[in-house]
Amino acid sequence: MAKAPVLTPRAEDFPRWYQDVLNKAELADNGPVRGTMVIRPYGYAIWERMQAEVDARIKTAGAQNAYFPLFIPESYLQREAEHVEGFSPELAVVTHAGGKDLEEPVVVRPTSETVIGEFMAKWTQSYRDLPLLLNQWANVVRWELRPRVFLRTSEFLWQEGHTAHASEQDARAYAVRILHEVYEDFMRNVLAIPVVVGRKTARERFAGATNTMTCEAMTGDGKALQMGTSHELGQNFARAFGIEFLDESGVRQLAWTTSWGVSTRMVGGLIMCHGDDAGLQVPPMLAPVQVVVLAVRDEGGVVERCRRLAEDLRAAGVRVELDARTDTSLGRRATDWELKGVPVRLELGPRDLADDAVTLVRRISGTKESTPLGAVVEAVQMALVGQQGELLDRALRRREDATAQVATVEEVVEAARSGWAALPWSVLGPEGEAALAQQGISVRCLVGPDGGVPVTDDAADLVAVVARAY
Amino acid sequence: MAKAPVLTPRAEDFPRWYQDVLNKAELADNGPVRGTMVIRPYGYAIWERMQAEVDARIKTAGAQNAYFPLFIPESYLQREAEHVEGFSPELAVVTHAGGKDLEEPVVVRPTSETVIGEFMAKWTQSYRDLPLLLNQWANVVRWELRPRVFLRTSEFLWQEGHTAHASEQDARAYAVRILHEVYEDFMRNVLAIPVVVGRKTARERFAGATNTMTCEAMTGDGKALQMGTSHELGQNFARAFGIEFLDESGVRQLAWTTSWGVSTRMVGGLIMCHGDDAGLQVPPMLAPVQVVVLAVRDEGGVVERCRRLAEDLRAAGVRVELDARTDTSLGRRATDWELKGVPVRLELGPRDLADDAVTLVRRISGTKESTPLGAVVEAVQMALVGQQGELLDRALRRREDATAQVATVEEVVEAARSGWAALPWSVLGPEGEAALAQQGISVRCLVGPDGGVPVTDDAADLVAVVARAY
Repeated sequence: MAKAPVLTPRAEDFPRWYQDVLNKAELADNGPVRGTMVIRPYGYAIWERMQAEVDARIKTAGAQNAYFPLFIPESYLQREAEHVEGFSPELAVVTHAGGKDLEEPVVVRPTSETVIGEFMAKWTQSYRDLPLLLNQWANVVRWELRPRVFLRTSEFLWQEGHTAHASEQDARAYAVRILHEVYEDFMRNVLAIPVVVGRKTARERFAGATNTMTCEAMTGDGKALQMGTSHELGQNFARAFGIEFLDESGVRQLAWTTSWGVSTRMVGGLIMCHGDDAGLQVPPMLAPVQVVVLAVRDEGGVVERCRRLAEDLRAAGVRVELDARTDTSLGRRATDWELKGVPVRLELGPRDLADDAVTLVRRISGTKESTPLGAVVEAVQMALVGQQGELLDRALRRREDATAQVATVEEVVEAARSGWAALPWSVLGPEGEAALAQQGISVRCLVGPDGGVPVTDDAADLVAVVARAY
Repeated sequence: MAKAPVLTPRAEDFPRWYQDVLNKAELADNGPVRGTMVIRPYGYAIWERMQAEVDARIKTAGAQNAYFPLFIPESYLQREAEHVEGFSPELAVVTHAGGKDLEEPVVVRPTSETVIGEFMAKWTQSYRDLPLLLNQWANVVRWELRPRVFLRTSEFLWQEGHTAHASEQDARAYAVRILHEVYEDFMRNVLAIPVVVGRKTARERFAGATNTMTCEAMTGDGKALQMGTSHELGQNFARAFGIEFLDESGVRQLAWTTSWGVSTRMVGGLIMCHGDDAGLQVPPMLAPVQVVVLAVRDEGGVVERCRRLAEDLRAAGVRVELDARTDTSLGRRATDWELKGVPVRLELGPRDLADDAVTLVRRISGTKESTPLGAVVEAVQMALVGQQGELLDRALRRREDATAQVATVEEVVEAARSGWAALPWSVLGPEGEAALAQQGISVRCLVGPDGGVPVTDDAADLVAVVARAY
């Protein structure tokens, strides 16, 4: 008799499979207020690893962390017309506090351009104060009508970078640097997700930006997921908040600003890009638990040997956990660790111990082999490197296989049933884009003929990457 | 002519001195919504170091990080009578979201016992699920009528630990463990603040707790500052939220819970405990910048040598910054680094370079000496250890000198003008406590005759530590 599947198979119902993974791998729950989420310890450990990797890259790019208030006066949002128009429908408003009604209601930040703009204006006097490179890790609130845990929640966690520069070129270069050196590098080399990096069309731009650049991932069901964005804000916010400086010749100038962010949505992306019918698959570079050592039975010093093995691995810099719950069957525990997507499993029982060996199981390739105990640390390290590469290769192959090079709008609709389409932007144009939007298909981004990020959206040879999106 | 002081002298106006340090050391600003704050990069770097040290200790104590929603249904708070009574006057309430009025208003979390209680109930079935040890790093909101940056703000950042246990003894032992191994250890050995650790009286207990334990620091003006608390919540929240489990004999039991937290208030404590008339003094173990290397002039390879020196120190694990702003005077820059409280300053000019030496200045002891360049890494490491010890010794001496052992309530009032008082709790009692409260003096905590934390507040030989408090 075949084993009943632990999860709804992806091919049967992808959204239900996603929900099953959240529950069974103990990643997250719905919160009591509609659209909010509870991130459980394993889900949060994944987020902490994402934070550590992104934060290190942000610091290398020269930005400093700071913290700005959750509550923003309603009047601040009014100051930038497109910004308030974009965010108004999603705002949560505090009208009552400290036992009485507030004179001016305050909004719970949906993003912090406005309040940070106010302080940038205060801190910027001379060109010597620029560039001003700030970042914050924070929660933000955007009321969601169709919430989905990690992907679209009324409250989510993110980092938001905000910078001010003395020239447009400097602002642009920094927004592009963050896009590639922080986001794309992290997603490709840590998450093993080969994102397509490009420029948003005017229709898809951030409210208040002059240019939005994006990293787009392909999900297991061939849709697209926006994983992070970097915006040039031109002088829009500088004008609204008075971010001015005296240049080298003593002339007062308006600054140029940028903003950029990635969020807990990336945890959803990780699940959707790499998960299979057995659960999550976490790339080794990211994994909070890279290796689990399973004691098969509490017999003949097995548990003690497993503990030593875990210590040896930890000493070698491997993130390892010991599973000595020998009162639960090995099969059940192996299934749990597969659900959680731990890249390498070491199983050690009395028979292995007698052979001075351990069974090494790779989550991603699914291969299994007996390894001498004396060589296990090195074997694990090689397996981790190998699994990282395999995950990226697989995702890259899938993205290539599921992206159709097409020439007409009709072909886009056909291709978008199961994957992405790429076609000349000159063929599609804003009108074709609007027509596709009627069918729930959007231009994810424009890329240059060489795959680079275009500086404008009206060059002749741009390629539009088009898909259904989460 | 004497130099004009950079800061208001502490003896002249302590609160104004505090405000001056916040501004001049670029630690924080007031936010636009009354009672909120902006934590600037240097202030935030200090908070990040606090987070890292506390987080490591929390993980060692076995708790796992998670994240629960900012928004809590109003009805949740109603379920624990004392809890809602304690927090109602401070709540911020969202009544409008997503473009319409909410059916049930939601409160912005003032603390998360209620929402976490709800999920603990969901996740706890059997004694095998206990203890359940959770922690979260988050922002919380408690509307403040008399705000003061870092000390009392309407929004602040903190960690809140929440745990559920199978027995009262186990819950108590864990709350005590956190108090000593996480909070007291961090405050004494990293912050160099010799906190007094004790038990709160019934009057000062957390709303909903059966026992509150606290770490109390002495400020530079002889007042007290509560730096962190650890609570036993008995079965109050378990009853309100149904946190139940089947014990080993299959009988349904109510769990016992704890909660515990420290916040950005500790940054205020750091300033108030260690600051002097020249600015902040940051203990080396905490300092985000332990050493600054100042190039005196850009002449004869000085800047290049400073850069190498900074690299050597970084390679030795020292957190170091290079200050090569040679267009600003050395005096001005030295004053700035003193304001920021960086423990060690290395000044290198052409003359020093000719002597193959560097001037090493200690912020805390104020001593200065020429050190051979070849021996500077070792000299810096010794200076850091020395400055850490000196800061703790000094704070300990001040606390001892400014704590009067008294025998009557009248003497307490006199002592509390400039410091703390200690007297037998049997002499003071709840009535004396109420009388002192009329004069703005409170019992900070009760300690045992041996200095330990008492298990009850009605033992015969308890000592009450009494002071004015921030």
